Amino acid sequence: MKLQTLKGFRDFLPQEARKRQFVIDALKKVFESYGFEPLETPALEYEEILLGKYGEEGDKLMYRFTDNGKRKVALRYDQTVPLARIVAQYQNALPSPFKRYQIQNVWRAENTQRGRYREFLQCDADIVGVSSSLADAETISLAAKGLEKLGFKKFTILVNDRLVFENVPKETIAIIDKLKKIGEKGVVKALKERGIPNPTSLLKTIISQKPTERLTNTLSCLSELGVQPLFNPALARGLDYYTGLIFEIEIEGYSAGSVCGGGRYDNLIGMFAKKQIPAVGFAFGFDRLMEAMEELNLFPKDITAPITKVLVTIFSPMLKDTSIEVTSIIRINGINTEIYLDENTSLEKQLKYADQKGIPYVIIIGENEAKEDKVTLRDMKTREQKTVPLKDLLNELI
Amino acid sequence: MKLQTLKGFRDFLPQEARKRQFVIDALKKVFESYGFEPLETPALEYEEILLGKYGEEGDKLMYRFTDNGKRKVALRYDQTVPLARIVAQYQNALPSPFKRYQIQNVWRAENTQRGRYREFLQCDADIVGVSSSLADAETISLAAKGLEKLGFKKFTILVNDRLVFENVPKETIAIIDKLKKIGEKGVVKALKERGIPNPTSLLKTIISQKPTERLTNTLSCLSELGVQPLFNPALARGLDYYTGLIFEIEIEGYSAGSVCGGGRYDNLIGMFAKKQIPAVGFAFGFDRLMEAMEELNLFPKDITAPITKVLVTIFSPMLKDTSIEVTSIIRINGINTEIYLDENTSLEKQLKYADQKGIPYVIIIGENEAKEDKVTLRDMKTREQKTVPLKDLLNELI
Repeated sequence: MKLQTLKGFRDFLPQEARKRQFVIDALKKVFESYGFEPLETPALEYEEILLGKYGEEGDKLMYRFTDNGKRKVALRYDQTVPLARIVAQYQNALPSPFKRYQIQNVWRAENTQRGRYREFLQCDADIVGVSSSLADAETISLAAKGLEKLGFKKFTILVNDRLVFENVPKETIAIIDKLKKIGEKGVVKALKERGIPNPTSLLKTIISQKPTERLTNTLSCLSELGVQPLFNPALARGLDYYTGLIFEIEIEGYSAGSVCGGGRYDNLIGMFAKKQIPAVGFAFGFDRLMEAMEELNLFPKDITAPITKVLVTIFSPMLKDTSIEVTSIIRINGINTEIYLDENTSLEKQLKYADQKGIPYVIIIGENEAKEDKVTLRDMKTREQKTVPLKDLLNELI
Repeated sequence: MKLQTLKGFRDFLPQEARKRQFVIDALKKVFESYGFEPLETPALEYEEILLGKYGEEGDKLMYRFTDNGKRKVALRYDQTVPLARIVAQYQNALPSPFKRYQIQNVWRAENTQRGRYREFLQCDADIVGVSSSLADAETISLAAKGLEKLGFKKFTILVNDRLVFENVPKETIAIIDKLKKIGEKGVVKALKERGIPNPTSLLKTIISQKPTERLTNTLSCLSELGVQPLFNPALARGLDYYTGLIFEIEIEGYSAGSVCGGGRYDNLIGMFAKKQIPAVGFAFGFDRLMEAMEELNLFPKDITAPITKVLVTIFSPMLKDTSIEVTSIIRINGINTEIYLDENTSLEKQLKYADQKGIPYVIIIGENEAKEDKVTLRDMKTREQKTVPLKDLLNELI
């Protein structure tokens, strides 16, 4: 048997898991500061809830199977369709507007490539039940605040209104979306190949448009909120369910793509409730965020440093109880502390363990120290050590 | 189409999701204070990694299927077998001992009943690679600290050593495990039915045993750590992989069963590494913990109170910008704040929204207030309101 994970699936060892948790915690805090509340839905749903909601491609990439009870089930593919189910199923129990965030894994049997996985965390925030431009502005402001909270200083928020594409053929949108990638010539060529008439002037008309009145209102609210997006009439976003605002955020110094995308989608959330329910929201690309944080060196020191601040060694089996006692005292004071778990190990080996784990401080309590209620504190970096009364230890550590 | 979740699967609406997060966060903090580090493994594994590791029953209850690439895959069934894979696969990258915690969902197609679900959170902490009694004691101490952190004041830690069952037939263990449920007579009857000779004296021998030398050492360490378990020679625990210490924790005032169980299992973690790797650990029953917290009323007020502390209303469309500005100022000061998202709504309706969500404070900025750089602050509970200069607002709120 080969010891391996499935292609596109990942283990997160402690260092990585802690960094992920840091980003999640920071975003949660920002979401809640705007009054967004957490929501969790199951990993498995009845297949019929999810099937046909993501186009042909989605149905193909979905993890589907028949369970032991002969039910057709599918793994969560995104968090928007489950949100639509929730909104229909609990209509009377939810406030309106319903502002929720959701941070859970989704599964897609994609072709794996750099930065694309089959199990990945989605990080969504949406406002359901209100159609105002102020709601659009709040959404963008929230995304910006999230990035600021993570430490990103320079990023560009590109905005547009899907209304600019109102009079152009639907298939044009996906092509214009590639403008940045393939340039004007590339777009014109692609439009021509699709048989779109007058592609040059069509493109020119689109990129010379001014913000719609609606978008102007949104931008005005955003200005009050201290956020200055960049209007880009060629911004299209691939998905075809958007009905108004669309936006993407790019981080300066990180070129792998936008880390956040969203917009208004007024015809989706009501699909199960069988009525129109306006909605606006966005998703952070969690893996890209992680990568950008790494590249721009934004993880704070205490997240990359070891969890354990102090290792209490055991000088000899006879002195074990003293070491346990000291461990307890340090822990009570809120300092992450390990005790070496084998009393029959040489002090040298115990120090080596601290070194390997990068634990910054080690405490040694020999016979003399024990007699005099003292401990020896060793700084593993400078290799300096000093003997202090037990009661002064905490001051030294804090 | 019926809007529903699968049997045994649950949605967690905001109120519930926040309570879950509170418990998770508290436990993480305690785990880390003992130097345990987080680990994440994928939801899906190659079937061969999991199959045959949980007995016949486990294979039957496992969610298994063939993916689009014809791979046989299975959903995570527990966190111990994945841990064994991790330990074998990354042996050289992990510290020894490896102290990890893991809080992820697992899936089991169990018969659903009160408190038993098909998707549920497991909450594990284990020490891998060391066989000392001090490690056993640290494990129990950690579990106790976790419960204390959550606010549980009275609980009983039952401990035993599997060694007491060394000379009795294996099938006896599961029967004796039911002593509390079916009484001595019931156990003797069940033993007799299984054809065990001299059941009465067998039971008497077991329940009159003293702690083993090993367990005495563990209890001595625990006493230094300030933890006093109760020795119970009849404690058996169902699973047959335990090799030494076993323990369970029961909470006073919560009768649905133990909320934590664990022990030493020295022959399991090495299954993929093909060598003996000692291990000790435990799992909290997350759903029972949640239930006990609820019954004993242990959730703190700020978790059951609304996330939003202040709603800034919009008095009229003309005054929208002022309200946005005030919202920004309050948020910068770390107070969770919503702005009402539709400027064309009557103030009455806006107040009703605050009432529905239980938001404690509402801010109203009419024309007079705006002119004088003031705001009116309304306490939604007492229905009292006062007009204060904007610069004094924060003092009022904090």
